[in-house]
Amino acid sequence: MVTESGPAHPTVAVLYADDRPSGLAAFDGRARFVLVTEDELPAALKDADALLVWDFRSRAVPAAWPVDGPHPRWVHVAAAGVDTVLCPALREGGVTVTNSRGVFDTPIAEYVTGLVLAMAKGMPDTLAAQRERRWAYRETESVAGRSALVVGTGPIGRAIARMLTAVGLRVTGVGRTERASDADFGTVHGFPALPGLLGDADYVVLAAPLTEQTTGMIDAAALAAMRPGARLVNIGRGPLVVTADLVAALTAGRIAGAALDVFDTEPLPPDSPLWTVPGLVVSPHMSGDTLGWRDDLAALFADNLDRWLADQPLRNVVDLRLGYVPTG
Amino acid sequence: MVTESGPAHPTVAVLYADDRPSGLAAFDGRARFVLVTEDELPAALKDADALLVWDFRSRAVPAAWPVDGPHPRWVHVAAAGVDTVLCPALREGGVTVTNSRGVFDTPIAEYVTGLVLAMAKGMPDTLAAQRERRWAYRETESVAGRSALVVGTGPIGRAIARMLTAVGLRVTGVGRTERASDADFGTVHGFPALPGLLGDADYVVLAAPLTEQTTGMIDAAALAAMRPGARLVNIGRGPLVVTADLVAALTAGRIAGAALDVFDTEPLPPDSPLWTVPGLVVSPHMSGDTLGWRDDLAALFADNLDRWLADQPLRNVVDLRLGYVPTG
Repeated sequence: MVTESGPAHPTVAVLYADDRPSGLAAFDGRARFVLVTEDELPAALKDADALLVWDFRSRAVPAAWPVDGPHPRWVHVAAAGVDTVLCPALREGGVTVTNSRGVFDTPIAEYVTGLVLAMAKGMPDTLAAQRERRWAYRETESVAGRSALVVGTGPIGRAIARMLTAVGLRVTGVGRTERASDADFGTVHGFPALPGLLGDADYVVLAAPLTEQTTGMIDAAALAAMRPGARLVNIGRGPLVVTADLVAALTAGRIAGAALDVFDTEPLPPDSPLWTVPGLVVSPHMSGDTLGWRDDLAALFADNLDRWLADQPLRNVVDLRLGYVPTG
Repeated sequence: MVTESGPAHPTVAVLYADDRPSGLAAFDGRARFVLVTEDELPAALKDADALLVWDFRSRAVPAAWPVDGPHPRWVHVAAAGVDTVLCPALREGGVTVTNSRGVFDTPIAEYVTGLVLAMAKGMPDTLAAQRERRWAYRETESVAGRSALVVGTGPIGRAIARMLTAVGLRVTGVGRTERASDADFGTVHGFPALPGLLGDADYVVLAAPLTEQTTGMIDAAALAAMRPGARLVNIGRGPLVVTADLVAALTAGRIAGAALDVFDTEPLPPDSPLWTVPGLVVSPHMSGDTLGWRDDLAALFADNLDRWLADQPLRNVVDLRLGYVPTG
């Protein structure tokens, strides 16, 4: 256990793995940080007033809850999705959970737009041909006028919608709250409308949080409802998609392609069949992680810690029933 | 030689290779089309009133000029660049040359935007890691706030500028005519200013026509002026870049990367060293060629032929001294 210097009150446990958040020194004299690994977490939580889940890949938080003794009143997660942190005991324990909403919006929108354009222009095939020193001239697709269905209308989905619209796609949204008129999406449909919308989309982009409602939402039936030329992009969480069903659809050529940045198991094991599925782009959960992002995450936590110490309302408070920060 | 049916006046020679333009039947009774291959071109030109260069990759037109006898008064090229058609004899022969300006603007803008995003997000490395079943997590670059210098301020350069701006880059233009205020570029600098601007750009995009002035414009000195982290994209014509100098710059890591869609020799031969240069994306001159583009090219020619038959001003008249259709 590494204990940072600083006076005793309050104590903030910091769950970390390889790297540590920057900027904590700015709180000298106002907060005490206890940096802990997964193994050290349960013991540290007993005396912690707050918890920063800096190692957002860790699954150690649900395992450490309920805490034996007074537990942290505030948990901040250095990620947009809090599915790896929430658990029934934490939900019922009177804890305020905040996330890192906002840091990833533009990077992920850029990533998704890049994937959509790369797939439309056949870039994976072009790079494969280059390796074979082969001049593989062919006609490719436009994106102008094509349709995109963005599932998830939080800040990440909205940034994706704005950028896809900016490069010429017609974008529709699916989210928790129906909206006949929406600045980013035009129209937002509710989740129950999803099956009926899938057949209208050239690109289906998953930017939804992982909740009971969204788990497995793209299954064999959903894939069968998609257009033969359509493509799926998942930058949300792996279990939004029933992986075996996607593999079957791609292998049978029932949809044109897919790009997955998130998986049921991460890192994706070397022996996973996903690496070689035809038409599938596999990337290592990196869509939102641009150079400097950890500093942005640390700055966002510092801002919330400032608010917490001043007893002001926190930013990005997660609705523990919904499992994400509700929008508007 | 294949002669299409139709009455005798006027005669339009059509230089073709594999495919033929659609829609010519609409001119039955108004024009006679003589479809010719490269070998048949010189003989056909003697009796042709107009020439459609449908096989825009052919270099047979300069070789067939000057024509022995009355020559075509109008030459229409099914491409944006007319460098493969223009020659001194044609320039001095009182011929009107028109091009296919407009067909390629949006497709090429999509292609370039896709390349810029793909390079920023390290997509070639991600696909390489996928082939090796390797989870290559890393941080990548944002494009938000990065700078792009677009060389060439015709309709293609303008479409590129608009789309790169739409995804968050700061765009500057270099063209024939300086403009302190420009709707697409903000500022347009003259070609002589290029060397001083290269050091400010994260992305340098070549969308200029190939002329005496632009040939070899990106040479060792230009590449040395670029930022170490900068990338070059060429969708114009191969000889805009001194290929050996680019290979040297990439091999030495003096710039971060490049994407070439055009080459001095096309198709790029299998034994070209370009296929394996580190950081170089090679694509087979396809940036503007989206599904349906040949129909768009044929429709544009048909519109001009309608105008020609009605003795109305033609669209897209090339300035034979400049070598392209001047803008505004």
